[in-house]
Amino acid sequence: MSEFTGNLLVAQSGGPTAVINASVAGVIEEAGKHPDAITEIYGGLNGILGILNEDLIDIQDELSVSIEGLKHTPAAALGTCRYKIDFKKNTDQAAKDINRLFEVFEAHNIRYFFYAGGNDSQDTAHKLHEQALARGYALRVIGVPKTIDNDLPHTDHCPGYGSVIKYNATTVMEIAADVRSMATDGGSCCIIEVMGRSAGWIAAGTVLAKRNPEDAPHIILLPEIPFDEKAFISKVEATVSEIRYCIVVVGEGLKDSAGNEIGADNTRLDAFGHPVLSGAAERIGEIISSKSKTKTRTVKLGYAQRAAAHCASETDVEEAVACGQAAVRAAIEGKSGYMVKIVRLEHEPYKWTTGLQDLKDIANVEHLIPRDWISADGFLPNERFIEYARPLISGQLQLPMEGGLPKFVTLKKSPVEKKLPPRVL
Amino acid sequence: MSEFTGNLLVAQSGGPTAVINASVAGVIEEAGKHPDAITEIYGGLNGILGILNEDLIDIQDELSVSIEGLKHTPAAALGTCRYKIDFKKNTDQAAKDINRLFEVFEAHNIRYFFYAGGNDSQDTAHKLHEQALARGYALRVIGVPKTIDNDLPHTDHCPGYGSVIKYNATTVMEIAADVRSMATDGGSCCIIEVMGRSAGWIAAGTVLAKRNPEDAPHIILLPEIPFDEKAFISKVEATVSEIRYCIVVVGEGLKDSAGNEIGADNTRLDAFGHPVLSGAAERIGEIISSKSKTKTRTVKLGYAQRAAAHCASETDVEEAVACGQAAVRAAIEGKSGYMVKIVRLEHEPYKWTTGLQDLKDIANVEHLIPRDWISADGFLPNERFIEYARPLISGQLQLPMEGGLPKFVTLKKSPVEKKLPPRVL
Repeated sequence: MSEFTGNLLVAQSGGPTAVINASVAGVIEEAGKHPDAITEIYGGLNGILGILNEDLIDIQDELSVSIEGLKHTPAAALGTCRYKIDFKKNTDQAAKDINRLFEVFEAHNIRYFFYAGGNDSQDTAHKLHEQALARGYALRVIGVPKTIDNDLPHTDHCPGYGSVIKYNATTVMEIAADVRSMATDGGSCCIIEVMGRSAGWIAAGTVLAKRNPEDAPHIILLPEIPFDEKAFISKVEATVSEIRYCIVVVGEGLKDSAGNEIGADNTRLDAFGHPVLSGAAERIGEIISSKSKTKTRTVKLGYAQRAAAHCASETDVEEAVACGQAAVRAAIEGKSGYMVKIVRLEHEPYKWTTGLQDLKDIANVEHLIPRDWISADGFLPNERFIEYARPLISGQLQLPMEGGLPKFVTLKKSPVEKKLPPRVL
Repeated sequence: MSEFTGNLLVAQSGGPTAVINASVAGVIEEAGKHPDAITEIYGGLNGILGILNEDLIDIQDELSVSIEGLKHTPAAALGTCRYKIDFKKNTDQAAKDINRLFEVFEAHNIRYFFYAGGNDSQDTAHKLHEQALARGYALRVIGVPKTIDNDLPHTDHCPGYGSVIKYNATTVMEIAADVRSMATDGGSCCIIEVMGRSAGWIAAGTVLAKRNPEDAPHIILLPEIPFDEKAFISKVEATVSEIRYCIVVVGEGLKDSAGNEIGADNTRLDAFGHPVLSGAAERIGEIISSKSKTKTRTVKLGYAQRAAAHCASETDVEEAVACGQAAVRAAIEGKSGYMVKIVRLEHEPYKWTTGLQDLKDIANVEHLIPRDWISADGFLPNERFIEYARPLISGQLQLPMEGGLPKFVTLKKSPVEKKLPPRVL
């Protein structure tokens, strides 16, 4: 027997991706190799929220084929949440939540906790690590990076990012072929809205569709660069006058020079009180229509982009699995309070490995595109960005199919018997 | 030498699809087998509009690998147009156009004309056939069906349709997995807008994503069924209350009981004077938000759906190629004034062949979903539709890739020397 023995809990948090389940599969596969140290493997349903409700499932009751299938199943198979333990604003509730989490951990002898998520989730993981130390509760906490937004610091990139840009760049190529073949008259402009509130990594990634200078996308509007309407209209008109069409990609969080989001609908707020962004492409379309004769059409990929397993990057899937495995290995080695990161060794041929970063360096730090990775006029990422992003989309995931459609996995979710009274709010 | 010898002209018209180039490849491949009858193979750029401008290209100057590559290249490789020879409203211009087309045909000894397109294009093909007879100009005209909308009569379905519903159904499955995994609170509803102005075939096709009763899509709003707001809100609320989320697919041309398009933006008109439809999903989202507490998000796939070669149906590609080949064979046999149609021989296992239909039966007839293929409440297509649509999405097209993205073909487009003075408008 290992000196440090107990049960493992893995959970997912925040917006899903095409490969967040692959990280969970990595955790589970690696955990199975350490039966001396890890007794039971549990999944927490709907992230922290489900753990607070003691909603745990027994992963060992799942078929092994289901675990393998997680590697090509998009979204969060364990369920996810946007619930945030608010250590800053709501200290009473945060203290209650933390106490409850440790009650659940203790009741189920959880000694290994792996949380796959973005900024907020790494923050939660960090707090749990600190609290475990403060309480003298033996717990090893490792964060697994996940976000299509690619805005976590210290990791070269985040699992989920390669797949979203592969799908979006493919879509840009296809839409461009369509619009180009229709461009017989006064010209037309198609505006494609992609995700990305603060960081423009997702929008920038579509530049990979551009193999030749005249290829789409012709303009990429990044949230990092304040929107310059006049320069934008000039560039649209110059492009349409030269090649009769123009493909614009806009990150949903594009801001004007005053910092206001171009596409914000202030009448609707999300769980964090941010305005729901629904209209950057529509708004840009209106601006073009009001200033030029170019016809406009819009595409809003929305959730389609982050769930597009059918167009996922094989490299991304491999890295996501490896991050899950590395998290378990680190914990087995006695580490806690770290996030797994991806370390790039070489651009071409692309070589990478995993590493660990102290969670205190991660939480709530947002990683934006460096200004010198973007062209002087701000309308396209440059060669430095392309060199960075290119390897991340390589390889195609081969999805098992059934009747012409993907065959995704649904977990059985056998509940672990509850041992505590219900959570009191 | 054959008794009937001359040059061949093939052109594409209307909105592109993922497989309209496959039909052109079929025409070219088959034409190459009949050197006695077909001397030169020309492509007309941008449909009728390019032919009026005598913009012809020499297909025999293209690499054979490019012709093969057309089978997986989306959009219209020859270019397309929305230009319509308006025989009803603008008889002067129509007469001029027809004269000009025959001047071009005669100047280049065009004796075979193949036009791949939808309703308007089949109408044009029909008029050209009639005019050729009336003028005593020896010409064999065969229409090749093409439309994602699937609204041509007499053919079992249209090339292009299988691919768009395969992509859309895949997307619905993926978005549903995402929304389901986030459904931890008051419930959420994602509204996915797909193409389809009058006919709901595209929206209906997403029902193939539904393998189990609780699977998405939960509601499909078809243009054929007047929108019943009250019944719709009830169904959304019932669905959310049962499974905490709801996936709604809406055809862009959804109409209210007075026949007004729900998502019409009357400030913008397309080339035919129809209002541009940009907002069915947004409008449905607003209606839900105003009547219920369910959170809403929208996705507007737009051009992405009809250009999605990366998710094309192999069956659709095969049928598109076969339609092009059958068109040439019919003309070689001496036929003119027909459209190739797809004839279904068996549902399961799916068997089909091609046939011919008189063009006078096709033009301007719109084929809608039969009412008895839709559930009594109007919110989902039923088993009869599913039996019809299921085989059309089978098989995956394997795209050649380069750097993690599809490798599409661009034609060289060597111009055929012009022999006429420029067109006078």
